[in-house]
Amino acid sequence: MSTLEEIIARIKPLDRSAGEAAQARLDNLTKPLGALGDLERLARHLAEIRGSADIAQPRAAVAVFAADHGVAQAGVSPYPAEVTPQMVFNILAGGAGINVLSRRAEAEVTVVDVGVNYDFGDTPGLVQAKVAMGTKNLAEEAAMTLDEARQAIGVGAQVANKLIADGADLLIAGEMGIGNTTPCAALTALFSGRPVAEVTGRGAGLDEKGLAQKIRIIEKALALHRPSPERPLEALAALGGLEIAAICGYMLEAAAQGVPVIVDGFIAGCGALVATRLAPAVADYLMAGHNSVEIGHQVQLKAMGLTPILSLDLRLGEGTGAALALQIVRAAVAIYNEMATFADAGVTGHQG
Amino acid sequence: MSTLEEIIARIKPLDRSAGEAAQARLDNLTKPLGALGDLERLARHLAEIRGSADIAQPRAAVAVFAADHGVAQAGVSPYPAEVTPQMVFNILAGGAGINVLSRRAEAEVTVVDVGVNYDFGDTPGLVQAKVAMGTKNLAEEAAMTLDEARQAIGVGAQVANKLIADGADLLIAGEMGIGNTTPCAALTALFSGRPVAEVTGRGAGLDEKGLAQKIRIIEKALALHRPSPERPLEALAALGGLEIAAICGYMLEAAAQGVPVIVDGFIAGCGALVATRLAPAVADYLMAGHNSVEIGHQVQLKAMGLTPILSLDLRLGEGTGAALALQIVRAAVAIYNEMATFADAGVTGHQG
Repeated sequence: MSTLEEIIARIKPLDRSAGEAAQARLDNLTKPLGALGDLERLARHLAEIRGSADIAQPRAAVAVFAADHGVAQAGVSPYPAEVTPQMVFNILAGGAGINVLSRRAEAEVTVVDVGVNYDFGDTPGLVQAKVAMGTKNLAEEAAMTLDEARQAIGVGAQVANKLIADGADLLIAGEMGIGNTTPCAALTALFSGRPVAEVTGRGAGLDEKGLAQKIRIIEKALALHRPSPERPLEALAALGGLEIAAICGYMLEAAAQGVPVIVDGFIAGCGALVATRLAPAVADYLMAGHNSVEIGHQVQLKAMGLTPILSLDLRLGEGTGAALALQIVRAAVAIYNEMATFADAGVTGHQG
Repeated sequence: MSTLEEIIARIKPLDRSAGEAAQARLDNLTKPLGALGDLERLARHLAEIRGSADIAQPRAAVAVFAADHGVAQAGVSPYPAEVTPQMVFNILAGGAGINVLSRRAEAEVTVVDVGVNYDFGDTPGLVQAKVAMGTKNLAEEAAMTLDEARQAIGVGAQVANKLIADGADLLIAGEMGIGNTTPCAALTALFSGRPVAEVTGRGAGLDEKGLAQKIRIIEKALALHRPSPERPLEALAALGGLEIAAICGYMLEAAAQGVPVIVDGFIAGCGALVATRLAPAVADYLMAGHNSVEIGHQVQLKAMGLTPILSLDLRLGEGTGAALALQIVRAAVAIYNEMATFADAGVTGHQG
């Protein structure tokens, strides 16, 4: 398996000439120039990523990385930590939001235990890659060791590699981990330079008092570890989560293999943000699926220069917003491949 | 066939109790309360329209109403009027944007000639309901007689009635008509009370000079006819188009039969705006598919109190934005019907 540094070294720039060829095709379709807006931009972007103006419907895969968080004990979520393994079983049984939306978008769902504080035994269908039984409480000690962070990044990269080897050519990262908006807000504050209160939201539904406590915990963690945005791996270990590290590795490996990733909400966005701090070129391979209600998400997207496809007031995570956006990406590919050209349809073009 | 007044009299208020029952189901699904945002609102709205908390995947149908516009001779579009029948053939052949996006969204497409300035002979597949060979130039005379406007409304209502009788329970209105953003800007200015320049856009791609001329033509038409927003039928006849009138009738009949309509862009939005001026209750049955680039579209949505599902920089028309939005509506219905409840999945709920 490649090291983190080896993965990063394999990320290539986009193929702008394939994008131009795709735009030329789009301009010949029976519609006013540019009239399909974001659908045209998505088709062109896919061509740039694939390095070819020949773009077929993607074979899409969703990996849901699950892990627990020591900070959950501190009351940063209205749900108890036992919900993490319960939701893993729910996703494996096909009953969660991500299952429903992936079925509609024709994407396969894989569930990965990268750090749930529960012994799954030989649960069928679950990818077992546990690095630790959850993180430590970031407000009191480092969430992970540097070695654990690297291991979790490796798990994500291996999962991406396996899905791509099995035929996937578009990836989505989902997650499940009670308490995980807290480490993400900490990392987002660090990398954006914005005050904690501006990037910290209510997660799964905190009240006013809970939100104030969450902000205090994050501020305490930042004061304790004094992380540097120039040292993203160390910051990830001190403040992050095992699923966040895995998502980061998953996105890096996808980019290294020239495979696009649709970014979901605040947690997947955090993994993406760390990935872009480790390797800025990864951002070229990302499409922002949606604009989450969680306030720090917009800060992340802005920091990465990404424009969201959808804005539907979502805040579920699991990859749900990205799976919805996949349907728009699929519509873009269908337009690109199936619409008639002016010449084919005998339609008169733009005058003057 | 019902008269316009009879159709309007049949529109009933929404069933709020069905909406509450739907929300109760949504609140028991394995996700934080409200975490699926607009998907939850769409599912609830469908329940209110259907009058039942039992909502199945809609059987969706798109009717594309095609007509010509006398004002097209005045150079308000960069495309010649001959493109209207050419695009009718393109849609019938399955090669237009609306065909591609309807296939993805599982919706049937019907094409209706309500006023194209072309003799289609016995073109297979085309619904022939021509009221006139296009409208007159609104800047010089009334676009339609009052009788023609009523006839075109009747065509739309009959098409909706036929689609519903054949099993459709969700409708989309599309349109094709070179020059049709001009009458829509005139009607939007009238009903919103906003200056012409604030609701008039570049349509299929006018340059600066063309846009200025389009605004002058609309101002001239408004000065000539002096329409009153209190007399929407007369205004529609003086300023409108045959496909706009048909869309208005189509939406009124859908509402009268308790069937939701996803509104597309500026032209469908204009039909909707006229419909809501004839019968305000129709707005309850409308879902705004997207937020068009055409500047007057946002003014229309605001005037009707509608919030768009998508915002993808589209300006193609034909029903394309509504067909894309249908995929989001379908996702909402899938979530509603397929997600596990907390009890089913053995997941612990919200604490405190």
